[in-house]
Amino acid sequence: MTRVELRGAYAAVHAPGLDDEVAVEEPLEIRVGGAPLAITMRTPGEDEELALGFLYGEGLIDGAREASVTLDANTVEVAGPLLKDPQARRFYTTSSCGVCGKGALEEVDAPPAADGPIVDRAFLSHLPDRLRQPTFARTGGLHATGLFTPEGELLKVSEDVGRHNAMDKVIGWALRRDAVPLHPNVLCVSGRLSFELVQKAAVAGVPILVGVGAPSSLAIRLADDQRITLAGFARGERVNVYTSVERVR
Amino acid sequence: MTRVELRGAYAAVHAPGLDDEVAVEEPLEIRVGGAPLAITMRTPGEDEELALGFLYGEGLIDGAREASVTLDANTVEVAGPLLKDPQARRFYTTSSCGVCGKGALEEVDAPPAADGPIVDRAFLSHLPDRLRQPTFARTGGLHATGLFTPEGELLKVSEDVGRHNAMDKVIGWALRRDAVPLHPNVLCVSGRLSFELVQKAAVAGVPILVGVGAPSSLAIRLADDQRITLAGFARGERVNVYTSVERVR
Repeated sequence: MTRVELRGAYAAVHAPGLDDEVAVEEPLEIRVGGAPLAITMRTPGEDEELALGFLYGEGLIDGAREASVTLDANTVEVAGPLLKDPQARRFYTTSSCGVCGKGALEEVDAPPAADGPIVDRAFLSHLPDRLRQPTFARTGGLHATGLFTPEGELLKVSEDVGRHNAMDKVIGWALRRDAVPLHPNVLCVSGRLSFELVQKAAVAGVPILVGVGAPSSLAIRLADDQRITLAGFARGERVNVYTSVERVR
Repeated sequence: MTRVELRGAYAAVHAPGLDDEVAVEEPLEIRVGGAPLAITMRTPGEDEELALGFLYGEGLIDGAREASVTLDANTVEVAGPLLKDPQARRFYTTSSCGVCGKGALEEVDAPPAADGPIVDRAFLSHLPDRLRQPTFARTGGLHATGLFTPEGELLKVSEDVGRHNAMDKVIGWALRRDAVPLHPNVLCVSGRLSFELVQKAAVAGVPILVGVGAPSSLAIRLADDQRITLAGFARGERVNVYTSVERVR
């Protein structure tokens, strides 16, 4: 038998011959107006921000709402009503073309990014160095998203076992400060750049998104469509800028 | 404007000052008996295996089915009927306890792992070296799952932008060879060990699961419940064995 002691965002693990600390993963139920909407696996902490950021990214709310953690601390209750029926999302399909990447791109409901800041290439390549990850340092098991000013000041960092959750937490934090759309800001993520992350950034109005890891094909196509500057493999002196290079000196 | 040319599992990208290759991410619709069931973002290739592995992991089929890729190559059609109503999955909630990790563990419908093989610690720590990843080598953007014999022979490796998809592809491949439950085998994944990956391994009867990355708290608790040997941080001479250490010499 292995013992796992939950301590907030991390857990202590005791097994024969091993004492370790790992990231906590627990389900969170998001409820709106008393009805269950979604369940996500996440790392506890900033649950209200996670719920708000998630609902905003789905186009279901257009600003911060009253939110509270209830019951067993794994349920967030957000005040209703929603902007649209959550079932109405057709999600990557159009009747004319079948399922395809182009359909997925067309489903994203956000205006192109504003002009936004102009930054140095070295600024982008070194941005991950500024992503402080307190729980990752203990566990090696968490993704992070950081929100920066164009001068490189870290405004907010969130961690989670799910990369999409880490970004939802940051955007939910910004929503509560009435700072969305994030036109003047830069987002930096600790891992790879998927379609879903670019989608969330697009809806939040982020002009520049940087990742330590590789982008996918659809992430690049969406960033290009939305005029977002997408940069990957940001490490030391190196960074690849895939789209909207006009924002990079 | 950035140009993205899809070439199967990878894509060529051309932007001002940059030529690169990235992993392809495109939506796949899984249909059963003519009706849409789920859409997942995935890397094209082995789509029928992905669909079968996904349905098996959800408890919706109990073996291989006739499957075919249709329409625009982003739709897999699997022959019905299903074992149960896909809507019936309560998913991490029980009326008595609210939403919690314990509820999530109880939802997993699989017997404890069979005794399975006994392996050396060094076998586990070096297993990731044997995970060949042809498309990762080009793109740096793919997860992988490998299916091994206890002697270390690689039977099958699959890659995908989604870690859960890579495992579904391997399990779907095994289903088609009537090799499930995978009692004699070892699975190795290129990244972190989440609850969802342990759940899929449990349903497929895998006794030993190894990852290059960190496990989550709930992954460890589920592996412990299911008597699965869960090992993380497998790199060079080092590996942490979190559960069912009796299978490790």
